[in-house]
Amino acid sequence: MNNPLPATRRYFEDLHLGETIELGRATVTREMIFEWAREFDPLPFHLDEEAAKKSLLGGLASSGWQTGALTLRLLGESFLNGIATAGGLGFSDLKWKKPVMVGDTISATATIAGLRRSSHHPERGILMMDLVVTNQKGDEVMTMSLANLVEAREPAAQEPAS
Amino acid sequence: MNNPLPATRRYFEDLHLGETIELGRATVTREMIFEWAREFDPLPFHLDEEAAKKSLLGGLASSGWQTGALTLRLLGESFLNGIATAGGLGFSDLKWKKPVMVGDTISATATIAGLRRSSHHPERGILMMDLVVTNQKGDEVMTMSLANLVEAREPAAQEPAS
Repeated sequence: MNNPLPATRRYFEDLHLGETIELGRATVTREMIFEWAREFDPLPFHLDEEAAKKSLLGGLASSGWQTGALTLRLLGESFLNGIATAGGLGFSDLKWKKPVMVGDTISATATIAGLRRSSHHPERGILMMDLVVTNQKGDEVMTMSLANLVEAREPAAQEPAS
Repeated sequence: MNNPLPATRRYFEDLHLGETIELGRATVTREMIFEWAREFDPLPFHLDEEAAKKSLLGGLASSGWQTGALTLRLLGESFLNGIATAGGLGFSDLKWKKPVMVGDTISATATIAGLRRSSHHPERGILMMDLVVTNQKGDEVMTMSLANLVEAREPAAQEPAS
């Protein structure tokens, strides 16, 4: 899992509005669900198959935060590790639209939805991404918008002092 | 970590707008940061102390998603495991305001910011919570708003059919 950075990284100027990145896929196993739930989300319906069947989820499903962390890993492997990211700023409007059931394979797509220079740091830009995560049937299971700070090749041109 | 549900759970009707819940604290160790980063967020500045020092973070810091997952665990232990939660719906406006550095101790507070009946399921309600996570100096490191589905003791009164 320890991916060295590629020799050629993309900088802020190399990113394009509307660019779409396929982030690959991950299959959620029973062991992954139990392990995550024990550590981070110890609710009965993530820890016990009988409790899960009786719950709103209708069966064993991953914690929504686990789906988020798996998506982060896909995003890192397929995109963030190849750009000059300086870290995440936050995200908005995360929605868990359907449960991710045991055995499901999720895949994710990121679309570059915004690119602007940082107002505080002329040598960096802010990258906005829309993420859509689907299951193997094509149903959307999670959507979110994410903001990331990316280093630029050249500082932004300064406004003339007024 | 496997906390059984308490014998007496609180239902939707037992929750109060403005109620504030202290969620306890967690200390972020070097091993926790490396372990998480290897599995979910393998960026150099989460995996290597020298790279971390040169990064915007200024030193080894946890992945923002790790801070989120630790907060989820605190929320589960101190609150969600004691109410009749049916699962999370999503969240909005997550902001990482300051990095969580190695050795920092985070603590979190949840405030009940909204309570309304589900329009689709009269036997459930939607709980909105504002979460504030601070470090040991009292600086805010993460804020977010979270929506959770909670079972009610009694179905909502039905509107007369028009």
